[in-house]
Amino acid sequence: MMTDISLANGRVLPVFPQIALDEIEGGADRILRTVGLDFKDDPTSLEMLETLGARIDGSRARLDGERLREVIRANAPASFTWHGQGRDAALHCGGGDAIFAPVYGPPKVTRPDGSSRLGCLEDYREIVALCSQTPALQSTGFLVCNVHDVEKGDRHLEMAKAHLELSDKPFMGTIFGEKALAEVIDLAGGGEPEPGHCTLLHLINSTPPLVFQKNPLRCLRAASSLGEGCIVTSYMMMGATAPVTLMGAMTQGYAEVLAGLALTQLYRPGAPVVMGLYAVPFSMSTMQPVFGDPVSNLSQIAGIQLARRLGVPCRGDGGVTSSKVDDAQAGYESLAATQAAYFGGADFILHAAGWLENGRCTHLGKMQRDIEGLEALQAGADLGSTLQLS
Amino acid sequence: MMTDISLANGRVLPVFPQIALDEIEGGADRILRTVGLDFKDDPTSLEMLETLGARIDGSRARLDGERLREVIRANAPASFTWHGQGRDAALHCGGGDAIFAPVYGPPKVTRPDGSSRLGCLEDYREIVALCSQTPALQSTGFLVCNVHDVEKGDRHLEMAKAHLELSDKPFMGTIFGEKALAEVIDLAGGGEPEPGHCTLLHLINSTPPLVFQKNPLRCLRAASSLGEGCIVTSYMMMGATAPVTLMGAMTQGYAEVLAGLALTQLYRPGAPVVMGLYAVPFSMSTMQPVFGDPVSNLSQIAGIQLARRLGVPCRGDGGVTSSKVDDAQAGYESLAATQAAYFGGADFILHAAGWLENGRCTHLGKMQRDIEGLEALQAGADLGSTLQLS
Repeated sequence: MMTDISLANGRVLPVFPQIALDEIEGGADRILRTVGLDFKDDPTSLEMLETLGARIDGSRARLDGERLREVIRANAPASFTWHGQGRDAALHCGGGDAIFAPVYGPPKVTRPDGSSRLGCLEDYREIVALCSQTPALQSTGFLVCNVHDVEKGDRHLEMAKAHLELSDKPFMGTIFGEKALAEVIDLAGGGEPEPGHCTLLHLINSTPPLVFQKNPLRCLRAASSLGEGCIVTSYMMMGATAPVTLMGAMTQGYAEVLAGLALTQLYRPGAPVVMGLYAVPFSMSTMQPVFGDPVSNLSQIAGIQLARRLGVPCRGDGGVTSSKVDDAQAGYESLAATQAAYFGGADFILHAAGWLENGRCTHLGKMQRDIEGLEALQAGADLGSTLQLS
Repeated sequence: MMTDISLANGRVLPVFPQIALDEIEGGADRILRTVGLDFKDDPTSLEMLETLGARIDGSRARLDGERLREVIRANAPASFTWHGQGRDAALHCGGGDAIFAPVYGPPKVTRPDGSSRLGCLEDYREIVALCSQTPALQSTGFLVCNVHDVEKGDRHLEMAKAHLELSDKPFMGTIFGEKALAEVIDLAGGGEPEPGHCTLLHLINSTPPLVFQKNPLRCLRAASSLGEGCIVTSYMMMGATAPVTLMGAMTQGYAEVLAGLALTQLYRPGAPVVMGLYAVPFSMSTMQPVFGDPVSNLSQIAGIQLARRLGVPCRGDGGVTSSKVDDAQAGYESLAATQAAYFGGADFILHAAGWLENGRCTHLGKMQRDIEGLEALQAGADLGSTLQLS
């Protein structure tokens, strides 16, 4: 219904000109070649990078960016199927539709009446059930809040059970550790899916500047080796863990995710991956990242465009804000982030509902409001059906 | 910088398929032919419509929609120059760039500390000065709040003086009455501008359903006859003054603005015009329009597309919300409206900063925040320059 028509005035969200993307790729290649990246405590990964001509010095690997892109382009799927419970509940990641998932990671849960507490299993299950019920979220995510009332060693399993028992939708894996990761894959019936398919998507971040820490690296290897999916992201604080300029941060972050993505394809050619870049200004007065700043929306648009160049699905970040309460700032920043991710063309959009306080709290009132916003966005995208035209 | 590149995924704001626009135009023609419109207390306008074959019955005119479109397409400029103080301060309306103007019409003014009062001249001048200072607003608008401490007969002049004394930017005319309108045009040095130019833009609304009241009609005639500009809009309440469905409301509203636009070209061929359609759901529980609803954003996108078909510049509505305080709802709804207007392709975007309480209050805190949002939007649109690429 939407393909035969174009926007009246041709105004589009900001997009990076090719010359900017060229500069980012070229700069990243220079960083990879001259400075290199640190891969902590994982000799296996370093050995694998050597097969691509990396020069190893301790944990440091100096790399050839073009070789990394070659191995990604030759092996990583441009899109893949993400399975939920039963074959009917499958999503296609990278096929054109956006997949929205709730906030990931907050320790706290806040209710619409303002009461707040450290997350517990009861909260977790309530949030998963809520995310399962709304058609606006296609995945129930993972770690929708922490579960402080569960023993540390059991948390990943209780979380996974909540997703499996309360929803048919695809959800994400855990990165609490290699063993936990494998246990959740096992519980979800995943591992060794056919090529171009996965059961769980794992959130693997580099540690800017230019480091992959031991745990994410081993989780990246564990998940990819089993043929399961990874979202490889550089989450940068501009002026703290990355250059203060947008172009500088994008260049550093692209170097990081390029190496992470190439590793997945060395571990297991064809393993599903998603790429993400996100840069947040760091405030020298509060010593905190300033989520919701417009420059972060530009950073995710650049990330999406770079992922398209590479030929892999891309991550976006919706619903983020630095506001401490669900106020005008929260509404404005969240919608701006969601729209940048969606209209920028992200395939998988994390934090799309419930994020507050720089991601330290899952806010149930805001989650409901974010969901209503997503419903409006998705109804608009299917305007032909909405209008019930013949 | 932005022309050689396309969005990664091709996701765009909802746009109406041609079949929907055809249905709206066809339906409007049927309404014009069979029901007709009322033109109250203005025999001159009725006589002019007769020259287009209208059948007159009292104040009712039954019209041929195709003839109305013909006279508009043959005479109305596709774009025009809107002059401020001095030729340097001119805007091009319909040339591709969006013109943002502040909220229009509130009786009250609210300050960031929450204090609120009926607007006075001191408030008015403060708001005009603020709008003049920010590059994010290209026009200082008009009636940015009412001035209750000024005699009714002098208000339009005091308002116009504020715009003329405190800003170089183009501003809007008054529709307090024919005489007031002419006085402000005179004060601003307008009247009989060269073709394709105007000094003041006048906000002329139909009175749905299917009526043009005496005062707006006479103001429309007075402004157009002097060669000055008019924004002709149908501002509908779905379920109260228009059908409750979007397609129904668009059909009625298009019939109204088509007649209004055609009249301008009968009064003065070549007079600058802008077309707008805006439909707001009407709540049967609160008996109020619900500004900020997503369907209103679809209505303005339809209006923009219909204006493009007609070949005249189009109006959008940014920054609107039904929230009573500057809260999460206000932030979310305002940004969604502004983005729909901007990315939908509107040439002139009213209410882009400061609107609160269904338009009953100019909120200075929200105005500042809206302006910051517009700055981000406009910086993004010029990303090549922002990145300082070679």
